[in-house]
Amino acid sequence: MRASQFHLFTLKEAPSDAEVVSQKLMLRAGMIRKVAAGIYNYMPMGLRSIRKVEAIIRDELDRAGAMEVVMPIVQPAELWQETGRWDKMGPEMLRFKDRHDRDFAMQPTSEEVVTDIARQELKSYRQLPKNFYQIQTKFRDERRPRFGVMRGREFVMKDAYSFDRDAEAAGRSYDNMYATYCRIFDRIGLEYRAVAADTGAIGGDRSHEFQVIADTGEDAIVYCPDSDYAANIELAEALALQAVRGEARVALEKTPTPGKATCADVADLLQVGLDTTVKSLVLASDETDDKGEVVKTTLWLLLVRGDHSLNEVKAGKIEGLGSDFRFATETEIIEHFGCKPGYLGPIGLRKPVRVVADRSVANMADFICGANEEDFHYTGVNWGRDLPEPDFVADIRNVVEGDPSPDGKGVLAIQRGIEVGHVFYLGNKYSKAMNASFLDIDGKPKHFEMGCYGIGVTRIIGAAIEQNHDERGIIWPAAIAPFEVVICGVGWGKSELVRDEATRLYETLKSAGIDVILDDRDERPGVMFADWELIGVPHRVTIGDRGLKEGMVEYQTRRDGEQHKLAPADIAAHVIAQLRA
Amino acid sequence: MRASQFHLFTLKEAPSDAEVVSQKLMLRAGMIRKVAAGIYNYMPMGLRSIRKVEAIIRDELDRAGAMEVVMPIVQPAELWQETGRWDKMGPEMLRFKDRHDRDFAMQPTSEEVVTDIARQELKSYRQLPKNFYQIQTKFRDERRPRFGVMRGREFVMKDAYSFDRDAEAAGRSYDNMYATYCRIFDRIGLEYRAVAADTGAIGGDRSHEFQVIADTGEDAIVYCPDSDYAANIELAEALALQAVRGEARVALEKTPTPGKATCADVADLLQVGLDTTVKSLVLASDETDDKGEVVKTTLWLLLVRGDHSLNEVKAGKIEGLGSDFRFATETEIIEHFGCKPGYLGPIGLRKPVRVVADRSVANMADFICGANEEDFHYTGVNWGRDLPEPDFVADIRNVVEGDPSPDGKGVLAIQRGIEVGHVFYLGNKYSKAMNASFLDIDGKPKHFEMGCYGIGVTRIIGAAIEQNHDERGIIWPAAIAPFEVVICGVGWGKSELVRDEATRLYETLKSAGIDVILDDRDERPGVMFADWELIGVPHRVTIGDRGLKEGMVEYQTRRDGEQHKLAPADIAAHVIAQLRA
Repeated sequence: MRASQFHLFTLKEAPSDAEVVSQKLMLRAGMIRKVAAGIYNYMPMGLRSIRKVEAIIRDELDRAGAMEVVMPIVQPAELWQETGRWDKMGPEMLRFKDRHDRDFAMQPTSEEVVTDIARQELKSYRQLPKNFYQIQTKFRDERRPRFGVMRGREFVMKDAYSFDRDAEAAGRSYDNMYATYCRIFDRIGLEYRAVAADTGAIGGDRSHEFQVIADTGEDAIVYCPDSDYAANIELAEALALQAVRGEARVALEKTPTPGKATCADVADLLQVGLDTTVKSLVLASDETDDKGEVVKTTLWLLLVRGDHSLNEVKAGKIEGLGSDFRFATETEIIEHFGCKPGYLGPIGLRKPVRVVADRSVANMADFICGANEEDFHYTGVNWGRDLPEPDFVADIRNVVEGDPSPDGKGVLAIQRGIEVGHVFYLGNKYSKAMNASFLDIDGKPKHFEMGCYGIGVTRIIGAAIEQNHDERGIIWPAAIAPFEVVICGVGWGKSELVRDEATRLYETLKSAGIDVILDDRDERPGVMFADWELIGVPHRVTIGDRGLKEGMVEYQTRRDGEQHKLAPADIAAHVIAQLRA
Repeated sequence: MRASQFHLFTLKEAPSDAEVVSQKLMLRAGMIRKVAAGIYNYMPMGLRSIRKVEAIIRDELDRAGAMEVVMPIVQPAELWQETGRWDKMGPEMLRFKDRHDRDFAMQPTSEEVVTDIARQELKSYRQLPKNFYQIQTKFRDERRPRFGVMRGREFVMKDAYSFDRDAEAAGRSYDNMYATYCRIFDRIGLEYRAVAADTGAIGGDRSHEFQVIADTGEDAIVYCPDSDYAANIELAEALALQAVRGEARVALEKTPTPGKATCADVADLLQVGLDTTVKSLVLASDETDDKGEVVKTTLWLLLVRGDHSLNEVKAGKIEGLGSDFRFATETEIIEHFGCKPGYLGPIGLRKPVRVVADRSVANMADFICGANEEDFHYTGVNWGRDLPEPDFVADIRNVVEGDPSPDGKGVLAIQRGIEVGHVFYLGNKYSKAMNASFLDIDGKPKHFEMGCYGIGVTRIIGAAIEQNHDERGIIWPAAIAPFEVVICGVGWGKSELVRDEATRLYETLKSAGIDVILDDRDERPGVMFADWELIGVPHRVTIGDRGLKEGMVEYQTRRDGEQHKLAPADIAAHVIAQLRA
């Protein structure tokens, strides 16, 4: 490609509503252009990278035996009603009526449609395993779309769905996809981590997120540097920090803590460590009747150490509380504790409340907690002596750096990540709801065991940039760069020598199958260099009249910026060697 | 690909709601599966052909210098309001509100979005010409979706948009796209015709449809076998069938024609040729005030020969009538003609009506027309003598086979076609409405001259099948067949010889870059052959144990069905030669 023939459009400044670096750089490099909130044009420069990501994904999925299909963007309500998701999905799922007043949704994902395919076309165990995938536009009507392609409304996703005879075979399909995802992200050239993730209502341990490591990532990922352990923070298990409960040493005392409504303030006031305090959080679970009216509300007091934070996903797994919990209202709290939030604790409850202690709290002795009286805390609190044992002991907190690894092989570290892929074992949740079955070898119908596997195609582009950039612009991994090599012809208009030499190199690299762009725009070197550093092309060759007369051209990589002078005769071989390294 | 690994799913019978042959065969061959009216899954078999069509289109557009982008499926109302199309487009454009109650539409096409790109990113004449294209999902909420992918609601379209400095440059862009389209359809391997089409409000002669020839086509296309002339029937010019008006020979007479309300019945009754009769059609044009209230209605009497039919597109071009005309109501007709339809004519009008004679009617003598009295016609009617000359003489009829070609080089023929592509010169209609301009060489802003160019990607698949099929199934052109070659291993399970020989051939063809499928399903020959004839793979090699022992394998093409016996050592070279022929 010659730059003069391409649509090259860069900006000195990103639009003022751009928030994160990948969004700013994609807008500045002319990769995307905003059409509406969370809705973008993919411009020629951006589409080149997207197509490369898609090609790698397609290649690896085909290799893994998955079969490409395309399911519609506009899907009828009837299928979504079969699984109950028509009602369950929030406003993220955009719903509308067609001209005949029939209900449709724009696909946020395609479990229903693919399960409908399976129940019609997969009749026998002989046809299994099967894995259908599509690389297709999705729409999720995010309340607050932002961060460019990282949390857009219209985006490109690869979604795959496997169908198997039984859980064991489904496990093999899962492992196959897990390995395929590793190959995909290896080929794309990103630093990533596969982390165990929560399986929600499905249960089991078969859910992994693929996280691109980036300081700006929205997700916290937990790993053990000394072992294979990795999980997202929702799932990462927090062990008790003391194996057994300490002995009571001091007496219970009600201590004035006027105006000190947080653990940190209390610890400051009392000159003790934050890890001797206990935080009280009040949740509520409602029981409803057939009509959805609340008939009974139970309050739950959750206790975590002052320096820890509640993990709501873990809390949702407490028997009887469940994931539908809500935070209690101030009225409910006053009714049960006789006190406003800030001074709550497990001693002297006015009305029955279920007490849940985090594992670490359950083993604390001589701790500090609210006295259920404004401006007072208890110190020297001990389980059994000052209050009954908690109703439940459970892992309800987020792990922190330095916690022991659940596999016993060291301590945990935390880094930030951007979720770009997810593999998930679905079991027969959808096949059962939609009565999708096949005839097994024994002649009996069985529901498919399913898995689903997503990759955010356009999000990968954003994540790659969040991970790889500097103050001058993007630094692409070569596999998904819009171009692998740029040849800058300095003084293009004036020097025939430059034009000849640059064109010769361009043709040589093109014949070698390299994705090269020749900058023949006759711009000043500064303008050219700034453009290509912003765009982030990994390899640059600069050819100028003066250099040529001295028998050399200049080679530079975007990442390290080091300049090398080479003879024109050697440059093609050098660039090719770099790319194949 | 091995058939045992592929998702092969054929049906003996098409679902009962399938109407046309391409739809039936695509469903039976497992290429598509219906999700809702006009909405389909593209299954692995179908997607293979679609991807091949897309690849050819992409390759030729890139070669022609067009630049690929992807514009969103969900587009904001604001852009469509700028051109007035938000209100103008009918219910085919699906509109909806997002969760924040903002108006959006699903793109039926993307002139507005691409013009918005141009006005933001094309600032100078130096950036021109530019041509942006996308291969993207479109949605048109057809009132009665049908014929499978031929008139679906969700479909894949390639749309391209060119931007130029002036009309002359835009003409070059148009010619470039016209030539590119010819290359695309040549490569796909379809019999097609590029025909001139109506330009509607834009005017000029810059609009061509690309029609795939098929007896089942919805469009009538007109061409001259002795010249280059080709146009769709809406546009094809009908010359006067007599160069000058004949002389009046007989007297005007009011003839009873009881119950004979059509020209054919009257000609039968009077034992004359249908070409001596004149058909009367009554149209109405309404003038409205600012509020859209009708303030004046004019009636128009259009006269075409009894054996001709009215061309409404041509009628819409009559000065004063315009394309917004409607057919007059019976009440209006009785008020103006004093008679019900069936016996109308241009003699003795009760109220003023504008009379438009088709060119051929204007040159008729001694003709027959209604007498504006039930059960009576006039015979021996002559212009000037029996009634005033018509107010307008114009080409208002559809041409028929045998009409003189407008280029004077022979007579016209008509065939049926399926529109799969359209190139259209837009002028500055959109750039003006959206104030999209660039700075020209003289430093002054100018509106872009635009063209738009569409190809119905999924429709091509349907059209290819309508053109190429027989009673056994599809007959693919090799370039877009799901597979180019199928190797049927007969007695797969029993014969190692068959497995070895078939696998060897499969590997050889694969290495030669041929898209080959190996049928290793261990099915009976009849089942295999029926499947592959239905699916339409152009080349088949059958390898069986008995044949191998006699030193031969069987080669057959899908189109002619002739069987050839070849030595196993020769078969690979033979197949490759056939495909490269």
